[in-house]
Amino acid sequence: MTSNSPPPTAHSLEDRFRAGDLRALARAITLAESGLDAARPLLRAARELAASRGPGGTVVLGVTGSPGSGKSTLTDALIAFLRAQGQRVAVLAVDPSSPYSGGAILGDRIRMLRHHADEGVFVRSLASRGALGGLSARTMQVLALLEGAGFDWVILETVGVGQSEVDVAAACDHTLLVVTPAGGDGVQAFKAGIMEIADVIAVNKADLPGADRTVRELMAAQGLGKHDEHTWFAPVRRTVAAKGEGLDKIVDAILSHRAFLGEEGLHERRERRAEFEVRTLVQDRVLKRARAVSGDLYARVARGELDADAAADALLAGA
Amino acid sequence: MTSNSPPPTAHSLEDRFRAGDLRALARAITLAESGLDAARPLLRAARELAASRGPGGTVVLGVTGSPGSGKSTLTDALIAFLRAQGQRVAVLAVDPSSPYSGGAILGDRIRMLRHHADEGVFVRSLASRGALGGLSARTMQVLALLEGAGFDWVILETVGVGQSEVDVAAACDHTLLVVTPAGGDGVQAFKAGIMEIADVIAVNKADLPGADRTVRELMAAQGLGKHDEHTWFAPVRRTVAAKGEGLDKIVDAILSHRAFLGEEGLHERRERRAEFEVRTLVQDRVLKRARAVSGDLYARVARGELDADAAADALLAGA
Repeated sequence: MTSNSPPPTAHSLEDRFRAGDLRALARAITLAESGLDAARPLLRAARELAASRGPGGTVVLGVTGSPGSGKSTLTDALIAFLRAQGQRVAVLAVDPSSPYSGGAILGDRIRMLRHHADEGVFVRSLASRGALGGLSARTMQVLALLEGAGFDWVILETVGVGQSEVDVAAACDHTLLVVTPAGGDGVQAFKAGIMEIADVIAVNKADLPGADRTVRELMAAQGLGKHDEHTWFAPVRRTVAAKGEGLDKIVDAILSHRAFLGEEGLHERRERRAEFEVRTLVQDRVLKRARAVSGDLYARVARGELDADAAADALLAGA
Repeated sequence: MTSNSPPPTAHSLEDRFRAGDLRALARAITLAESGLDAARPLLRAARELAASRGPGGTVVLGVTGSPGSGKSTLTDALIAFLRAQGQRVAVLAVDPSSPYSGGAILGDRIRMLRHHADEGVFVRSLASRGALGGLSARTMQVLALLEGAGFDWVILETVGVGQSEVDVAAACDHTLLVVTPAGGDGVQAFKAGIMEIADVIAVNKADLPGADRTVRELMAAQGLGKHDEHTWFAPVRRTVAAKGEGLDKIVDAILSHRAFLGEEGLHERRERRAEFEVRTLVQDRVLKRARAVSGDLYARVARGELDADAAADALLAGA
């Protein structure tokens, strides 16, 4: 504990969180999501607990991929596979906060309910901030709470669109990119630069035509970049998530990447998560202040009366 | 001109830029890309020129869509169509700055060279900042220079991945989303929330099976959101860009959206572009300062010794 935390009272929320009580975890998440100060001691406790278990404690895995790649099905199959091995698993699913969402299109999530009677599985869905705006500081806080709560695996599933798709690499120890053989998905992932963030690649729906070609292309594409003996080449593995096929190879590949990172690498990832959270908080605050001071600043820039650099200086001085 | 600008000397770069000299424009873009102060009077001149022509002056169109949708081919066909109508067109293509890029995968761009002998077409390619990091302040500045240079159309083509895909709506008057019938692209766009940013939707490769279904789905999906008489429903139009088919309907739909926005709406869009640029500059500066002051701040957050809110406060106080 830090010196400025009040001592937790008997059976306080923090006590129960520290003891691994899942209802206390759920409550802590709600507090963090709401941005309440009451979440702060719990967040510190979570980080302290995670740090005390060393960098290898919890596997924090990001799962991303284009819509339609079968990300959710694969996550679901991964839960089942890990549970069969006795691992405790938490899943945090981040959905775009589309004005259209909230209804039927969240249906994918519902499949996860099949784990709902299992104490070893904890599933939570969060809205992303703004339309397609990437992972928020609060998402990072929920992730930290799950990591602190002592699950063996914490899986962050993000929709493969917009900033979330990119942020996932900063938020996790390992990133699993899910692609399909359809429509040259593999080559397109490569072309769009998204492959850079992948530590492991699943060619899902591998029973569809073109799977072999997609695997070959993804492997060949990685040979094109700069590399030396310290470069990690993302293993490319075939899966048919809907039938639970190939999950063993995915888990093996993730654990190989974990061995490759080593203690130091995993330690860095944890610090990077904290950094990402702090930077997101800083950005949010600056933008909030900017909205308060701006006046007709932007209109003046638009008319050419003021240049954008001067406007940025003015906002920072006022901030 | 603002009072603090020196008077341009005879045949100065600013003079030539104001006179519509394309070589002066190219030089101004290079200065802006390099972040040099010499770009500042040119940027103010560009904005002043654009403002003097009123909000309807230049059509600033964003084109986005998933990789493989045929975005570049459609942009190319759009240039040809607009040129045939005597319109002057500038294209700014933003590529992900993948470590892999820079070579063969920029091949799409090369097709645009067929316009290179045409004085009415100006094409420029920019790297996006960081991996998939969205549009930079400098991209916005290049866009402002093109708008000021008096083209009838300025087209911003962004890869449909990561933050760029989202930023395009803040950067332009109109956003054209390109989808294909393959792989349920339409429904997936809807599901991922990306459809919200579309003002016009092109179902490209409409000679492939499934085009009719994709059109129907995209139209039906829009009926699900909240709407009243002020809601714009994005027209869904079939194109076969590789054969130059359907471009007339796309241009008609864009011009309808322009009429819908009206003078006031277009004026707002121009201010929003300036705002986006200023906010991006502010964020860049804060992050730069944060890197300078951070010390072991992130490590302390990771160990639970400090909470992220306190760390954010410390960074802002130091900034």
